[in-house]
Amino acid sequence: MQHQHPGRATAPPEPLRDPAALRRVLSPRSVALVGVSAEPTSFGARSTTNLRDFAGQVWTVNPKYAGQELHGRPCFGSIADLPEAPDCVLLALPRTGVLAGVRAAAERGAGGVVVYASGYGETGLADRVAEEDALREAARSSSLPLVGVNCLGVVDHTTRAAVTFMPEYPRLTAPAGGVAVTSQSGALGYALMQAAERGFSLCHMATAGNATDLDVCDLAAYQLSMPECRSVALAVEGLRDARRLFLLGDAAREAGKAVVVLKLGRGEAGAAAAVSHTGSLAGSAAAWSAAFRRAGLAEVEDFDALLETAGLFAKAPKPKARGVAIVTPSGGAGIMAADHAEALGLDMPQPAPETERVLRGAIPEFGAPRNPCDLTAQVATNPAMFDACMDAMLADPQYGVVVMPVVYSHHATTAGRMESMRPHARKHGKPVCIAWMPEQLEGPGAVAADSAPELPLFRSTRRLMNAIRLWLEHDAQQAPAPDAGPAAASGLETAAASLPDGGTLMEAEAKALFARAGLPVVEERRAATAEAAAEAAAALGFPVVLKLDSPDIAHKTEVGGVKLNLADADAVRGAFDAIAASARRHAPGARVDGVLVQRMARKGVELILGCKRDPQFGPMVLVGTGGVMAELFRDVALDLAPVTPERAEAMLRGLKGFPLLDGFRGAEKADVRAVAAAVAAFSALVAAAGERIAEAEINPLIAGPWGCLAVDGLVRCGPA
Amino acid sequence: MQHQHPGRATAPPEPLRDPAALRRVLSPRSVALVGVSAEPTSFGARSTTNLRDFAGQVWTVNPKYAGQELHGRPCFGSIADLPEAPDCVLLALPRTGVLAGVRAAAERGAGGVVVYASGYGETGLADRVAEEDALREAARSSSLPLVGVNCLGVVDHTTRAAVTFMPEYPRLTAPAGGVAVTSQSGALGYALMQAAERGFSLCHMATAGNATDLDVCDLAAYQLSMPECRSVALAVEGLRDARRLFLLGDAAREAGKAVVVLKLGRGEAGAAAAVSHTGSLAGSAAAWSAAFRRAGLAEVEDFDALLETAGLFAKAPKPKARGVAIVTPSGGAGIMAADHAEALGLDMPQPAPETERVLRGAIPEFGAPRNPCDLTAQVATNPAMFDACMDAMLADPQYGVVVMPVVYSHHATTAGRMESMRPHARKHGKPVCIAWMPEQLEGPGAVAADSAPELPLFRSTRRLMNAIRLWLEHDAQQAPAPDAGPAAASGLETAAASLPDGGTLMEAEAKALFARAGLPVVEERRAATAEAAAEAAAALGFPVVLKLDSPDIAHKTEVGGVKLNLADADAVRGAFDAIAASARRHAPGARVDGVLVQRMARKGVELILGCKRDPQFGPMVLVGTGGVMAELFRDVALDLAPVTPERAEAMLRGLKGFPLLDGFRGAEKADVRAVAAAVAAFSALVAAAGERIAEAEINPLIAGPWGCLAVDGLVRCGPA
Repeated sequence: MQHQHPGRATAPPEPLRDPAALRRVLSPRSVALVGVSAEPTSFGARSTTNLRDFAGQVWTVNPKYAGQELHGRPCFGSIADLPEAPDCVLLALPRTGVLAGVRAAAERGAGGVVVYASGYGETGLADRVAEEDALREAARSSSLPLVGVNCLGVVDHTTRAAVTFMPEYPRLTAPAGGVAVTSQSGALGYALMQAAERGFSLCHMATAGNATDLDVCDLAAYQLSMPECRSVALAVEGLRDARRLFLLGDAAREAGKAVVVLKLGRGEAGAAAAVSHTGSLAGSAAAWSAAFRRAGLAEVEDFDALLETAGLFAKAPKPKARGVAIVTPSGGAGIMAADHAEALGLDMPQPAPETERVLRGAIPEFGAPRNPCDLTAQVATNPAMFDACMDAMLADPQYGVVVMPVVYSHHATTAGRMESMRPHARKHGKPVCIAWMPEQLEGPGAVAADSAPELPLFRSTRRLMNAIRLWLEHDAQQAPAPDAGPAAASGLETAAASLPDGGTLMEAEAKALFARAGLPVVEERRAATAEAAAEAAAALGFPVVLKLDSPDIAHKTEVGGVKLNLADADAVRGAFDAIAASARRHAPGARVDGVLVQRMARKGVELILGCKRDPQFGPMVLVGTGGVMAELFRDVALDLAPVTPERAEAMLRGLKGFPLLDGFRGAEKADVRAVAAAVAAFSALVAAAGERIAEAEINPLIAGPWGCLAVDGLVRCGPA
Repeated sequence: MQHQHPGRATAPPEPLRDPAALRRVLSPRSVALVGVSAEPTSFGARSTTNLRDFAGQVWTVNPKYAGQELHGRPCFGSIADLPEAPDCVLLALPRTGVLAGVRAAAERGAGGVVVYASGYGETGLADRVAEEDALREAARSSSLPLVGVNCLGVVDHTTRAAVTFMPEYPRLTAPAGGVAVTSQSGALGYALMQAAERGFSLCHMATAGNATDLDVCDLAAYQLSMPECRSVALAVEGLRDARRLFLLGDAAREAGKAVVVLKLGRGEAGAAAAVSHTGSLAGSAAAWSAAFRRAGLAEVEDFDALLETAGLFAKAPKPKARGVAIVTPSGGAGIMAADHAEALGLDMPQPAPETERVLRGAIPEFGAPRNPCDLTAQVATNPAMFDACMDAMLADPQYGVVVMPVVYSHHATTAGRMESMRPHARKHGKPVCIAWMPEQLEGPGAVAADSAPELPLFRSTRRLMNAIRLWLEHDAQQAPAPDAGPAAASGLETAAASLPDGGTLMEAEAKALFARAGLPVVEERRAATAEAAAEAAAALGFPVVLKLDSPDIAHKTEVGGVKLNLADADAVRGAFDAIAASARRHAPGARVDGVLVQRMARKGVELILGCKRDPQFGPMVLVGTGGVMAELFRDVALDLAPVTPERAEAMLRGLKGFPLLDGFRGAEKADVRAVAAAVAAFSALVAAAGERIAEAEINPLIAGPWGCLAVDGLVRCGPA
């Protein structure tokens, strides 16, 4: 399914690399290690050692040992001398030798190269950036996929092809499969891969490093194409073109697999000076989150949640229902799990009557045949009770998942208990999620669950419930209404194209632009004289507002440039003179074109509507509770522009201040649909404008039962 | 140090049990196991097995095997027959045999009893509650400390006295010491104790079960008295008298050790109907948190943070500075750690010039001689660089702690790396906290750090930074200004004693009470006729407000009972008649005493000030941003009453809406001290009133540069 992605005004992102074209380098059947020395702790030697369990062909390349064996592998004098075209060429060379290595690999018909060397663009030095550009050019011009530079390698667990210099390639205590790991940071990718040592099923790991050629999106998309892969755990720091995330999202949807993503470096770099409030309210971490949501990637906020959550997605079929059941031998652990579920708003329905009958018949009187279901410690001596209750809860159609807090890790029993859950989970096609409480983190039973394909295991109940929430949300999101935004009002691009090159549109011009985009704006007239103002007021109807009209003054109120609630012509004339005098006094050099005459806006709820360009994702639309609350409580919702009216309404409903629109304290309800339509129209405008609008704001947008109205606005233009 | 604790109006809590009197039962030198059967999986048999490494005397008691050996221990026919008075008598008996066992143990001069049996008060059945009461009475009347009922036992790791029925008493891979665990839930206590299997240093575990006699506070206080104990990890569900937490806090302060506490069952039981807003804004979880803070206990919100955080407190000396330094071989991990620290508001100063000089000299050009300090992967081949940088950062007086993210777990190197950090930490008397990133959770190196007394280890960077925040806060809190609240205005108790038995004080009476407590209240007069109202208005000064004065009508506005901004005597007369007519129409049966005449309050910021009695902790004081914001954003601060003016000011400064008082958007600053004084006075009143005030509210309290003023109020009285 291809659909329109945000940022459409600029060139589309580069398509993801065809997974078939990456198979040789990422899942090689032969590996040539270039630059291997005899020194056993060198990167090349360690890489050779890590291939000890790999069944494919392994060659080393080093002119000093040509014709001999090196670390037990046949050694050749050059890449050209290799007996076959290698699938994967590992360049364990210093930086200065890499470019020649890439060319030689291309020449020999390799399937791709992996480059460890660092000291390229990440140094920030111009000549090193140029070196990296040259590498990219060399690789791309010969259609040779390049992993790295500055990476830690690639591991295909399914074939034990461990192309990495890290010592001690993990022993696999579980079958290869399940989760694939893609990480920009090599160190963090490897830290994740060490889960293989504790029985966690992994199938592949790829590290992107500088992403000179392949970025994390290409690597993850390849992993999605692997039949063994059931989900991808992705750790990303940044992307040259972050819109490729949408392509990755498409690939995940097509594969019917989930990508769980962690954004590193979420810290805000301090509020930059901005003309509007929007600047300080829209952080770049929020933009990434909006992009992940839009792309259909499941975001976690903590490193320690990444692999566990990906494990749930790998092990759990599509949810059959939204209810969460908790079954436990420990009342205390059950309460704790219920607390976390409640805090996240998860649904914990009580068992259906027929389920409850089974529980009641099986559980001792001091247990709880409810949800959470306390089996009591008696379960230890009565496995039949356990089986009956687990089966009944899984059979209850209200529940999509059963959560089982486990409080002991014992050699004698715990692994067996884990095994006994698997057939129940399989039978009902629902996951049984284990909340592992023992502080013996890899104790008996943990390994059994970690490697069981039906039992997602979490060492934190909070993380478990969070992952279930993501799993349910992700499912709801997978059949989305096409979210490409409303059809742009005709001529939006034209309007945007006529924006000035830089500079700021003051109130009247800004509102004229918003009106062209289909937003309701307050009716107003310009008046250059007091008499003209009085006439305009009469035509509009009293009471009116007068506002200073000057291209040089953005903050009218501060120079006495706004007079409210003028009831008759005399008041208007007086106000005109006062504004003119005040402007002369406060801003002597400013051009003054006269005043804007507006009808007093009707009473209503103040909202703020804004747009800011994110450097990665382009225009973002922001809507929030207005006035004091915007600033103090940052009660805002944010998404990539454009948004549909449906999404805009969801943003409004997510505000803490939404009750103000919804009949708060007996007030009449505002026309939420009209507000949502305005938000959508605004978002369509800024999306169509692309870089021509750097920032825009409507403050306030007043909403009431009668609709909504943009009362003041500002547009800061980008370069033409 | 003894100081005044909240809730002083009622009887003081029962003092904590003298630790010396608990030594025999909690750290026994001899154990008698009563009710042991030959069946090896029985609780008694398993308990006997768990004492295999205990050097003290162990006897079993069972008339069937008297004179023989049972599970390798000499068996006696009855407690009376034991050759010596046992320190600890374990009653592994069914419920029905327990009372006799307690009496026999007392008779034989035992140091205390441990009771596994359940089915007492926790069933909710009256006869079972009575049985438990009888047990308590039997134990207390003979000064025999009783652990349980419904508990999982007691373990003193220092002597291997494992008085517990759990199978597989943990192997200790680390020296006994460090953290003691007290848990109400036996299962969770045991789950925590299983950390001993991964090298975590523990010294003691006690489970309270029903706390028939000893509660978690008694048990934790005993642990604090153990020389091996450096901190206590406490998991509490509830307490019969929660004010004993303050006594535990005193004991911790006296011992110079920390108690880290987790409250289970934080979920809110749905908002109960309440006359005021306060009811729905003050949750009971918030009351527990306020109590922990007041008691000086360090609260964690998650089970998985409890032991790790207690580990930091056990291993870390008192902080020498508040700065956090991050040192890592992985740039990505450093960014992640900095993100978490920033999100929690931790201080991360840059290294001092002399520190930076050392870093610059040691770290390669592509590293970062800053904070976070990126040593680069080169550290693997250059341990001297590591030592130089670690020493320099620890020596920098700005830093109180160094955080070291560890990204690999390798047999060859990681444990050695951990060992190499210990002398640095020791030399500078500062902890080096390990952020353990590898998903091999108990991999090489993790055990080394877990058991090293200088290296607190966390398997989550978020939890690590949270724990550091707690550690720094806890230190700042340990030398508190005595926080017993202001001296009660004379006669507060008298005023409270004269409150009606139940029922509600309407505006005028409520404000009179507040005025007596020293709060500034709006000046007002009662008037029974239109003419009297006009005279009162003239005396007060125009403009004025008229409010219906009726003991039967709480919500005056809804019956047209409030008229604002009356500018002259005629307006007052007209308003009086309108109010009277409206009241007759809307509430025909209500008594109407006339009106209250008030001067219009000056403009200012609206706050809400409230009190609600918590069932556990007594009166709580709440202050928040008023009006719409109180309801929509729940912008409130809460503490136990009474509070000092200093604490009240801290509560105000913690509000998101505080800028409104602090010169927001160029407004004049409000008199924050006056507001704080009013909050403190209000809190002194409700504390003095004890149960006589069930709920009280001032809404609004208007604050401005001129001070503050209570404009409306309500008091719901408790039983006399």
